[in-house]
Amino acid sequence: MVHIYTGNGKGKTTASIGLAVRALGHGFKVYMGQFMKGQIYGELRTLEKLGVLVERFGTDNCIISLEHVQDIDREKAKAGYERVKEVITSGKYDLVILDEICICPFFKLLTTEEIIDLIKIKPDNTELVLTGRYAPEELFDHADLITEMKEIKHYYNTMGLMARDGIER
Amino acid sequence: MVHIYTGNGKGKTTASIGLAVRALGHGFKVYMGQFMKGQIYGELRTLEKLGVLVERFGTDNCIISLEHVQDIDREKAKAGYERVKEVITSGKYDLVILDEICICPFFKLLTTEEIIDLIKIKPDNTELVLTGRYAPEELFDHADLITEMKEIKHYYNTMGLMARDGIER
Repeated sequence: MVHIYTGNGKGKTTASIGLAVRALGHGFKVYMGQFMKGQIYGELRTLEKLGVLVERFGTDNCIISLEHVQDIDREKAKAGYERVKEVITSGKYDLVILDEICICPFFKLLTTEEIIDLIKIKPDNTELVLTGRYAPEELFDHADLITEMKEIKHYYNTMGLMARDGIER
Repeated sequence: MVHIYTGNGKGKTTASIGLAVRALGHGFKVYMGQFMKGQIYGELRTLEKLGVLVERFGTDNCIISLEHVQDIDREKAKAGYERVKEVITSGKYDLVILDEICICPFFKLLTTEEIIDLIKIKPDNTELVLTGRYAPEELFDHADLITEMKEIKHYYNTMGLMARDGIER
């Protein structure tokens, strides 16, 4: 099965972490590749402790528009793509999470076709989870489960608060 | 802060589990109370191993409409409510997750006012996370962050598949 968690609301990455925890509870092997992220976030330490292989394919650059994307971001994303292709085809993992991959086409780090190719090469018994806002609609036909996380209210906006350790990262 | 994860899409409970994992990565103390659930799901075993106190206030009854609610469900929900009130006021936990509490008013297991009271008694430094579909709108004014998980596509509908171990439970 292929899941997509997209939308502008909070809960996409955390939902995939929750899926990882649930899968681990059943003895499944779990891999998480994070695109566009360079920093080590709190959740990764815990996931790693639980035996999840976590790899990051981003930099600490804060990319909020296309002009912020640098060559190094493109290189890291491409290298990450090759790496996750290997991971998926290996069939070693029951659950493969590709965090923030859905936003990569928007920032021209990967193409939609490249992501569809990952879905196509996936072994039948591998569960593939793709997260990130702005998931291109062309992806939807290739997914079995799609949830849009829709922001209804967020303290970023109402209170001007930024990301906090332990809650947002 | 008070978070609400509601809507008909997949990812509400898993997002709260992800928040728990993230908080644990920062050394926070985490409590999870699950309303309307009696069964032990895969994720709980892993969360418990990580030091999260998980308690359940439901039965194995499958409640899909008001007519399915039995006295035992109401009693368990009421007892759970008293228990989580204690947990919240104790101030012992940095993160308190009340899973499926948002749907309790819909099934007349708890009132919306009772849930608002929990928000009001919460110590300032306790992060409170409420999940469940059909969250009553009266709750929204009392929350800082609200995400609606919107189902766009689900294999329950397209393929007639039911919940699978390690993925849905």
